[in-house]
Amino acid sequence: MSTSSTTAQTVIVESPLRDLYADWSNIMVTSELTMRLFRSIFDEWHQPTVEPEDVTYKQETVGGVPGIWAFPAGADRSKVLLFTHGGGFAVGSASSHRKLAAHVAKAAGMTTFVLDYRLAPEHPHPAQVEDGVASFMALVERGIRPEDITTIGDSAGGNLAVAIPLALKARGKPLPGHVVAFSPWLDMENKGETLVTNDATDMLITVPLLEGMIAGRLGGATEPNDPIANPLYADFTGYPPLYINAGGVESLVDNATRLHERASAAGVDVTLHIAEGQQHVYPFLAGRDAAVDAELKSIGAWLRS
Amino acid sequence: MSTSSTTAQTVIVESPLRDLYADWSNIMVTSELTMRLFRSIFDEWHQPTVEPEDVTYKQETVGGVPGIWAFPAGADRSKVLLFTHGGGFAVGSASSHRKLAAHVAKAAGMTTFVLDYRLAPEHPHPAQVEDGVASFMALVERGIRPEDITTIGDSAGGNLAVAIPLALKARGKPLPGHVVAFSPWLDMENKGETLVTNDATDMLITVPLLEGMIAGRLGGATEPNDPIANPLYADFTGYPPLYINAGGVESLVDNATRLHERASAAGVDVTLHIAEGQQHVYPFLAGRDAAVDAELKSIGAWLRS
Repeated sequence: MSTSSTTAQTVIVESPLRDLYADWSNIMVTSELTMRLFRSIFDEWHQPTVEPEDVTYKQETVGGVPGIWAFPAGADRSKVLLFTHGGGFAVGSASSHRKLAAHVAKAAGMTTFVLDYRLAPEHPHPAQVEDGVASFMALVERGIRPEDITTIGDSAGGNLAVAIPLALKARGKPLPGHVVAFSPWLDMENKGETLVTNDATDMLITVPLLEGMIAGRLGGATEPNDPIANPLYADFTGYPPLYINAGGVESLVDNATRLHERASAAGVDVTLHIAEGQQHVYPFLAGRDAAVDAELKSIGAWLRS
Repeated sequence: MSTSSTTAQTVIVESPLRDLYADWSNIMVTSELTMRLFRSIFDEWHQPTVEPEDVTYKQETVGGVPGIWAFPAGADRSKVLLFTHGGGFAVGSASSHRKLAAHVAKAAGMTTFVLDYRLAPEHPHPAQVEDGVASFMALVERGIRPEDITTIGDSAGGNLAVAIPLALKARGKPLPGHVVAFSPWLDMENKGETLVTNDATDMLITVPLLEGMIAGRLGGATEPNDPIANPLYADFTGYPPLYINAGGVESLVDNATRLHERASAAGVDVTLHIAEGQQHVYPFLAGRDAAVDAELKSIGAWLRS
């Protein structure tokens, strides 16, 4: 990926992901998109990701939730990355995230199941978390050890990946062994200073866009500081090892840093990686950006440890 | 798939493909779609197709044309289905047709390369045929025997699959061993009685939709009876064995029957299958409709013969 500098301080990574976000933003400004068309354009999210080689797929329903399995060649089938896709709880799909999840699974030598959980606003919170919990428990019933499951997701799906173990803990259920959140979107109060300071460099996220998605997800029935809907208010005592990343120029970077602070304060083993100059959910550049591939490789090693 | 009867004569297969076409048609009527959004919704074409199991993928550029390889487990890598996707020469992609092409390749025990050929109207005819010819010749240069290549495609890509061998023949190049056309769209004069008689039962194709695509593809520079753009005017002498299918209730069914007549009259070994009650490019129901899977299996046997 080439980089350019807008100021002496800010490096911006130019990439097909940044171009796609700019294009979507242009469409959102110039067209009155219905939710149907909003979903259509966000299903293009896979486009910047190169097809991972040596991976096979299978559609299945696990715990009542449809989704796509990815099986990298030689992967340990007793270890599962339970992947919750991003898209503001309202858009995105297992298809839009198939390649991304498969790249992570391949780097880890594990399998992944990418959930097509129920979407807002048709299905408000906690439908998404409940689908994640149901799928997790179904994997355990199939004989997968809880500690061999990782909850993982990006953006709104990063919120879910963090919240699913909190929901399990609240019910006295076993927890996953690891949690991974790519550019997690947690703050349902729509606060955070990087919403302002990175507004010019983030090519996708805007305060009004998030406002609409919060309204659709919470549906007026859940408080924006509910700790399962907004894990920035959660008690992380006894939480599994947590890996967080975010792009350095994205508007949600302080969701990642605030999660890091809160979980660390509760004694959780947390790793935080901020990738200079990168956009929201920059792991979509897998197979295309050597630095991203190197990070996925190190996440794989971390997951195996 | 369930079926319903609208009259004593007409059986209509209800399916997620028919539902998707109805939804697209509704969007096309109710929204003023830009070409950008038109491409976005047609990239959903993969949705009715179940992920084929035991297939791996790889992005590559062959003869200057990008695309996606699909490698079914145990496939004969010396045999290649060169797949040109549908979408009126203007929309669709290797991604929208990855699963469909992989199902056919799996049924045949061969590999497939799905081309992301240049699209109209930015690139008018003959850009699409030229990309197919370039990719075919590049495969031959890599050591694939011409007779071990099949040109295959659906809708506008079915036109290309039929036209690429015609273009090769005109240049004295070797021909593929087989040709397969799913619901081929050939008639650039926009004629044919099933455009009228099946208008009510076809959930996608309309005369105005085709008119717009013809204008974009021919760009005023190619005559609509040019035999490479419209193979219904071509000389099929010496043409390879040809398999054609079409849905019984689709508006383009007589493109299939006219191609069958013309190629048969030239002495070509032609197989025609009309699937009762089915829509345009019904093989998109692969993995979901037992009759479609059975047909793909028989196409696989035909390709190996």
